[in-house]
Amino acid sequence: MRAAVMRDRKLVVDEIAEPEPGPGQVLTKTLACGICGSDLHMLKFADRMVEVAERSGGPARMDLDQDIVMGHEFCAEILDYGPNTQKTLKPGTRVCSMPVLIGADSVEGVGYSNRVPGGYAERMVLSEPMLLEVPNGLATEHAAMTEPMAVGEHAVARANLGSDDLPLVIGCGPVGLAVIAALKLRGVGPIIAADFSPMRRKLAETLGADVVLDPADTSPYAHWEELATPDGYDKNAVMAMMGMGLQPRPGVIFECVGIPGVLQQILEGAMRGTRVIVVGVCMERDHIEPIFGINKELGVQFVLGYSPDEFASTLQNIAEGKIEVAPLVTGLVGVEEVPGAFEELSSPERHAKIVVEPWR
Amino acid sequence: MRAAVMRDRKLVVDEIAEPEPGPGQVLTKTLACGICGSDLHMLKFADRMVEVAERSGGPARMDLDQDIVMGHEFCAEILDYGPNTQKTLKPGTRVCSMPVLIGADSVEGVGYSNRVPGGYAERMVLSEPMLLEVPNGLATEHAAMTEPMAVGEHAVARANLGSDDLPLVIGCGPVGLAVIAALKLRGVGPIIAADFSPMRRKLAETLGADVVLDPADTSPYAHWEELATPDGYDKNAVMAMMGMGLQPRPGVIFECVGIPGVLQQILEGAMRGTRVIVVGVCMERDHIEPIFGINKELGVQFVLGYSPDEFASTLQNIAEGKIEVAPLVTGLVGVEEVPGAFEELSSPERHAKIVVEPWR
Repeated sequence: MRAAVMRDRKLVVDEIAEPEPGPGQVLTKTLACGICGSDLHMLKFADRMVEVAERSGGPARMDLDQDIVMGHEFCAEILDYGPNTQKTLKPGTRVCSMPVLIGADSVEGVGYSNRVPGGYAERMVLSEPMLLEVPNGLATEHAAMTEPMAVGEHAVARANLGSDDLPLVIGCGPVGLAVIAALKLRGVGPIIAADFSPMRRKLAETLGADVVLDPADTSPYAHWEELATPDGYDKNAVMAMMGMGLQPRPGVIFECVGIPGVLQQILEGAMRGTRVIVVGVCMERDHIEPIFGINKELGVQFVLGYSPDEFASTLQNIAEGKIEVAPLVTGLVGVEEVPGAFEELSSPERHAKIVVEPWR
Repeated sequence: MRAAVMRDRKLVVDEIAEPEPGPGQVLTKTLACGICGSDLHMLKFADRMVEVAERSGGPARMDLDQDIVMGHEFCAEILDYGPNTQKTLKPGTRVCSMPVLIGADSVEGVGYSNRVPGGYAERMVLSEPMLLEVPNGLATEHAAMTEPMAVGEHAVARANLGSDDLPLVIGCGPVGLAVIAALKLRGVGPIIAADFSPMRRKLAETLGADVVLDPADTSPYAHWEELATPDGYDKNAVMAMMGMGLQPRPGVIFECVGIPGVLQQILEGAMRGTRVIVVGVCMERDHIEPIFGINKELGVQFVLGYSPDEFASTLQNIAEGKIEVAPLVTGLVGVEEVPGAFEELSSPERHAKIVVEPWR
């Protein structure tokens, strides 16, 4: 079958062996698979990702001298069942799954594995117990948005928002947009969001951000702090409150950029007592000045992935129209075009999410 | 009066003007004042502290071209009252106070101010509403330990410990020892503590650490993780649990060192889901590799100071013998010896806490 393959740290399109479903597994046809920023990271920082995974117990344990077929944001169609399966869903049923394959002696990350292909291939094997039927006649390419939107749901869940929390989202790429959608779903706000890209700012608005700022024009932190200050209070009274360790309204900042320097910028810009949720994946060494965190008693929560419940409820929310994902899908390509699509995604002006349809 | 003065970024002993109590203020005789690591920091990083305070809204807003008398861990005796005071406590009463002086138009940090002297001077002015009478005939030099021990109380309070949390204290200087005492007071444990210094390890044991490790011999992280693993569970079963995002026992690490590189070492050593409480004050630029935080979903809470309640209950707990501070006081000096004491404290083998008695 055809697949976009990471081979010798480059992306090529080639014929690869068909996957075979083992016990408890299902053979599927890949209908749609989003290209994730993590895959761009993987191509750029492959050795580092493998090294860090080994040092930190992370999800990616791969041999870079062997082929890897990436792709973990997928919707697929059931083709056939392996041994020891329940076969509850008929062949032809469209399904989503967390990108985790339970094998006899290991758990594989679908899209980050040497043993099984991810969604940039025509066919995949998935674990039967992980399958979720696509509900409500939801469009396939929108069902494929479940995985990235679940990342936002998880990040917001980990933020433990109170009703009074004022959220600021730094970066409106797919991760920031998923966070905005999850915030909107909870009805908290106003949601303040910032990105240098006009296209991303427009998407942030579409997904529910109430105030969208261009950091080149307006400091997101200053604007956010102003919004946190209750109307009618004298600025000196607010300063006095803050001097006593109180603050007008608690703040939560979502770091959705993932490049070095952003975390320190947030530590400098944050109001006292802010919780910073790090959702962006910075693969590089970063620097911080801890004294900013100390003087303002900031909290930094790093987050990753989602729970099975968060994944399932995200699919349901997309299907019910509570999370709008249509505007996110800005490109559809076949498997031959995957290397070009990776190039395209390096510019934030052209695309939010490119979805691969390997059957094309 | 005599005072140890920070002048031109050096510590000298000189005559300075007597302080005069304003409205709501009290004139006191300094009986005892501990030398804090923050004061050593201040002498070394004065310009940086002032710069960061200005950028971060921190407590220290000082002019380094004018004298500063440091010292914020004190016990004092009431000498006289300023105007508009209640005079509830008689002159001669021994008192502690949070190092905060409420003036007519500003709040001064006692010990970090150009306007009023701290505890390395013979006399201070304090705010009457902040005074706490020393109870139970508690020794003066032990009452002076209220401030540093309150730092530990606050850090542990901010950690929101569950009954199952397994605490690891990295660094057993005064900050780490205060954290150990506060953990012991709550009955959580076993408390694991690590320091390279034999003297500090001995103090850690005295203050209530259950397992005390020399990082030169034993990895504190590996030992802590082993203790977190319930007896009788197969190591593979535990690994499988952790692969599913569960962990045997939740962990909390207290960073009580405050030098660059320690936070990253903790991010690397921590178990999945650990909360890191940063109590050590790192004044320098530090580096981290965020991917360790991300892969393990770590949380980092920076903390500073204490609340008035925490300060008052710490004094009470010391007076009732619930927090043992006697072993901490390893030196008593007069005001003339303060510059030498600062030198002495740079070696962790000779001293934990040196207390200044300016009346000597």
